[in-house]
Amino acid sequence: MASSWVDGIIAEPMNQRSIIITVIGGSDAAQKDLDAAYQVGLELAKRGAIVLCGGMTGVMEAVCKGAKDAGGTTVGIMPGNNDDDANDYIDIAIPTGLGYARNAIVASAGGAIIAIDGAYGTLSELGYGLGNGIPIVGLNTWQFMIDEKEDTTIERADNPLDAVEKALAHAKARRT
Amino acid sequence: MASSWVDGIIAEPMNQRSIIITVIGGSDAAQKDLDAAYQVGLELAKRGAIVLCGGMTGVMEAVCKGAKDAGGTTVGIMPGNNDDDANDYIDIAIPTGLGYARNAIVASAGGAIIAIDGAYGTLSELGYGLGNGIPIVGLNTWQFMIDEKEDTTIERADNPLDAVEKALAHAKARRT
Amino acid sequence: MASSWVDGIIAEPMNQRSIIITVIGGSDAAQKDLDAAYQVGLELAKRGAIVLCGGMTGVMEAVCKGAKDAGGTTVGIMPGNNDDDANDYIDIAIPTGLGYARNAIVASAGGAIIAIDGAYGTLSELGYGLGNGIPIVGLNTWQFMIDEKEDTTIERADNPLDAVEKALAHAKARRT
Amino acid sequence: MASSWVDGIIAEPMNQRSIIITVIGGSDAAQKDLDAAYQVGLELAKRGAIVLCGGMTGVMEAVCKGAKDAGGTTVGIMPGNNDDDANDYIDIAIPTGLGYARNAIVASAGGAIIAIDGAYGTLSELGYGLGNGIPIVGLNTWQFMIDEKEDTTIERADNPLDAVEKALAHAKARRT
Repeated sequence: MASSWVDGIIAEPMNQRSIIITVIGGSDAAQKDLDAAYQVGLELAKRGAIVLCGGMTGVMEAVCKGAKDAGGTTVGIMPGNNDDDANDYIDIAIPTGLGYARNAIVASAGGAIIAIDGAYGTLSELGYGLGNGIPIVGLNTWQFMIDEKEDTTIERADNPLDAVEKALAHAKARRT
Repeated sequence: MASSWVDGIIAEPMNQRSIIITVIGGSDAAQKDLDAAYQVGLELAKRGAIVLCGGMTGVMEAVCKGAKDAGGTTVGIMPGNNDDDANDYIDIAIPTGLGYARNAIVASAGGAIIAIDGAYGTLSELGYGLGNGIPIVGLNTWQFMIDEKEDTTIERADNPLDAVEKALAHAKARRT
Repeated sequence: MASSWVDGIIAEPMNQRSIIITVIGGSDAAQKDLDAAYQVGLELAKRGAIVLCGGMTGVMEAVCKGAKDAGGTTVGIMPGNNDDDANDYIDIAIPTGLGYARNAIVASAGGAIIAIDGAYGTLSELGYGLGNGIPIVGLNTWQFMIDEKEDTTIERADNPLDAVEKALAHAKARRT
Repeated sequence: MASSWVDGIIAEPMNQRSIIITVIGGSDAAQKDLDAAYQVGLELAKRGAIVLCGGMTGVMEAVCKGAKDAGGTTVGIMPGNNDDDANDYIDIAIPTGLGYARNAIVASAGGAIIAIDGAYGTLSELGYGLGNGIPIVGLNTWQFMIDEKEDTTIERADNPLDAVEKALAHAKARRT
């Protein structure tokens, strides 16, 4: 009987889940960064990737608007308990109630991260992403130095399309 | 120019996000509970609701298989850091790395909760859901007593279809 | 040179850390439960145990006042970001910013748990404690049933002193 | 009756909790950084401050050994579920089970932060501390730049004693 989940024959397990790309950046960003985020969202959605972000304003809202303009799917990992706080372009709002500790989730959830602009929350997410070994592509985001040497682990992109292509290449490579 | 997210005219904000129903239950459940979970997933998806759960085995896997058999969408809030741990019927896996503290997110994220069966993790989720004022519908799940009196806040359902209808009614009522 | 931490010869590693007992219960409890919590704090501190709790009012405040009256040490794992929210009898306030997800930490941190009274937050902590295999002693707290059978894992105590002795016995047994 | 927590007259609420200083840094640091951490712990404890850290090895262990050599108190906010993972110089181990999301707590819990050395986890903690407006004193730790400009919010210290004095001055100023 197809009504038993054990004997069910209708659905096959997915071969492969959709690729999720995490996009991080400030809630109060400059216009050039918002424009870049919009383009990143548009190009990610055109290529079938799900956009995951922190669900709020600024870079997060811009990337989601871009993704929705191309018919994509967006996920917001919210700091608060209320999905009403999500920006208008979030399809699936996950209220966590964790406050900014939710950044740890944002930075772990995607196959790769695109970082745009640089609020302090973005800095915490870069630390997590780097610590977890998640590939990160930077578009006008933080640079770090210690002992007079720059850490060059973050791959720098020239423009939104370049960032999208680099991030997708990393995410696909991690699948195989 | 449509390339500016501010001036963009292609996408309109959604009127309303899809309803998300959280389904909780043990990772190692009895067949009758797995069958109930499968039916719950099937009926939720038929009605257009997104199924959110803890992403693992048992009740979580059964409800997702049901949802996928009806063409629905499933989200898994994972305890670990790796989306490979998600069951085969999860569309969007969110690895949190929080361990079982992720239960706090699972129990906050939906418009209503359907609880099936009763592992201890389910108990923690019921505590969170009740504390957060999220409507909960129970199908053969925990009952609680204190000072010799039963807490009757959880609405009991007679069968999977009844649970789905009660949960959706609650989730819709919270929207208005 | 003692100034190198590697060559330091002043301090020896502790043989054994102090025992921590977690006390959980509602922030708005009845007088009989507050009195019981005060006695639990007093007796724990007399026996050298550190009292850990959620740091807020009600049972949490009462148990801390008891512990301080006997010269003990108290730790509060706070839901918010501000240690000003801690009750007046907390020595070490740990603001987590996690909201009620901090319950997962409260319920994992002690060698044993004493549960008094029964708010919904307490229910989530009982679920975590049971799931993590932490010994729990109950004083007028929640009872749970599923499939018409009561779960009897929580050890019931007759009075505060009994609860303290049972909890310390469990915590010591886990050390050896 | 002193046995009622409400009428109790033995204990007075504390005027003021002990100052907690958070010390962050890598679990696998260079000897010069370990030596600096040891001195920081020693000088903090001499001045009565509680040392809070991530509870593990490297900078965390060195600062705790320093604090214990001066008779201080140390708190470790652990990533795992088991207080056995704490280094030998932790008095109060708080296992969180949150993985590296516990960094959000470490970076919020103290009156000020001293950062030594620079692992990626440290970077996430700096992001949180800066985002939460917690004063941070750096000893050979990360520097950040964006848009070709260095962010100079972190106050740089010349040596361990200087770091301790700067951090305590900040923590005291926040109290008043």
